[in-house]
Amino acid sequence: MKSYRVLKDGKFKLSRFDPDDTSEFKGGKEEALVETGQLRARLEHLQELLYAQKKHKLLVVLQAVDAGGKDGTVRVVFDGVNPTGVRVVSFGEPTEHELARDYLWRVHRHVPARGEITIFNRSHYEDVVAARVKGLVPKKVWRRRYRHIREFERMLTDEGVTLLKFFLHISKDEQRQRLQERLDDPRKRWKFRRSDLEDRARWDDYQAAYEDAIGETSTGYAPWHVIPANRNWYRNWAVSKVIVETLEGLGMKYPEPEEGLAGLKVE
Amino acid sequence: MKSYRVLKDGKFKLSRFDPDDTSEFKGGKEEALVETGQLRARLEHLQELLYAQKKHKLLVVLQAVDAGGKDGTVRVVFDGVNPTGVRVVSFGEPTEHELARDYLWRVHRHVPARGEITIFNRSHYEDVVAARVKGLVPKKVWRRRYRHIREFERMLTDEGVTLLKFFLHISKDEQRQRLQERLDDPRKRWKFRRSDLEDRARWDDYQAAYEDAIGETSTGYAPWHVIPANRNWYRNWAVSKVIVETLEGLGMKYPEPEEGLAGLKVE
Repeated sequence: MKSYRVLKDGKFKLSRFDPDDTSEFKGGKEEALVETGQLRARLEHLQELLYAQKKHKLLVVLQAVDAGGKDGTVRVVFDGVNPTGVRVVSFGEPTEHELARDYLWRVHRHVPARGEITIFNRSHYEDVVAARVKGLVPKKVWRRRYRHIREFERMLTDEGVTLLKFFLHISKDEQRQRLQERLDDPRKRWKFRRSDLEDRARWDDYQAAYEDAIGETSTGYAPWHVIPANRNWYRNWAVSKVIVETLEGLGMKYPEPEEGLAGLKVE
Repeated sequence: MKSYRVLKDGKFKLSRFDPDDTSEFKGGKEEALVETGQLRARLEHLQELLYAQKKHKLLVVLQAVDAGGKDGTVRVVFDGVNPTGVRVVSFGEPTEHELARDYLWRVHRHVPARGEITIFNRSHYEDVVAARVKGLVPKKVWRRRYRHIREFERMLTDEGVTLLKFFLHISKDEQRQRLQERLDDPRKRWKFRRSDLEDRARWDDYQAAYEDAIGETSTGYAPWHVIPANRNWYRNWAVSKVIVETLEGLGMKYPEPEEGLAGLKVE
């Protein structure tokens, strides 16, 4: 998955990533679905280890344009993983209560504790992307937030968080189809907002804002992965694979039981 | 009060500050008590402005060795200021719940909102002072926290917090007298803990840890003030003066009322 990991070389171009790419998977959709199922079984086990050992903490940040597939990714990748140790936190428009403090306040509250996996569905990156595109804060303010975010994530990872950031990358035409489907399907219509069309009209601005944000905040300790996401099966496989391989790299073990338990008979 | 403000010149020595100094006040204890009362009246007014305008936020961090006078400073300086807009947050030994996250998690939760004054009685500085002296984390861990803290405070102040940090500086002999008084006075005995004596035995280690922490984290945006604190009257006057002059420097104004209210008769 190295090819989707954004290097900190100051040359990140979103346009170099093809939303239709499926080249990392050797096989077609059916095989990918099978392998994603296998990855999920490994994830179930890894989450149990993480929870039992209470040493590591995993934070997954998901960002995408509207209809980019954040909700679907969470549903598929974490399907069947014990919800006791997994928490999804969705960040919508900030409330007045949240806006009265710094923009990292509401996200910091929800970082994972030892033994926990937390998924941010949207995050502090909205404060350098949406806030910029919508002109909610002046350039001077959003520009200096890159540094805040780098340093915030440095602190989190120094203090034991494993941090993975995914940008689910879809094309403009794919978004058109997905938004149309939401409008046409009565069971999906609830997800549609008129403001989605306003955001769509600023497609290029959002792409530029994401490009800058990803380039400015991809670090060795908190890398971004740009996942080709026009095909759901590929996106789910790729995200699962990065998460599973990262957790496997932690070398987790079950904690030592109390001494003298082996052979003990319960009466 | 410039003389107590720690400059970011890399040459900070705690031993250069005399805990008995009272040289910034021209007069004796009686006059200082009167002037502190006048400062308090100005603070009452400034806090009301801050609350009405809901633009600024003030965070005051108080650190000191045991019996250094943190509680007394809060009680005297903020006496009579409307508690609706002033919150004191005391940070004791971290709980298991807090230790499961990064050390900034519990303090970030309590930063002031617009219009609020928050006072931290102890703070994240315990995590580079007490944690170091007691050996709770290895040197590698506490050393990198200086940067975390500088950047955390940069973010807070970039995002609108006015941040004042005070180290209440008492001498070792003054601490001895105060701890003895706590032991001897039945109404003060509840404040005494045996662990205060263990900490006292490591006096030099604490002074060294404070010296490093203050030197490493005194910045233009979040300066430390080392306040001579052997005499309570002087300490209270000095802290009041710094806070009042800082708030006056914000140039606050009451918000504009709705139009057409002047002359309106209530029937």
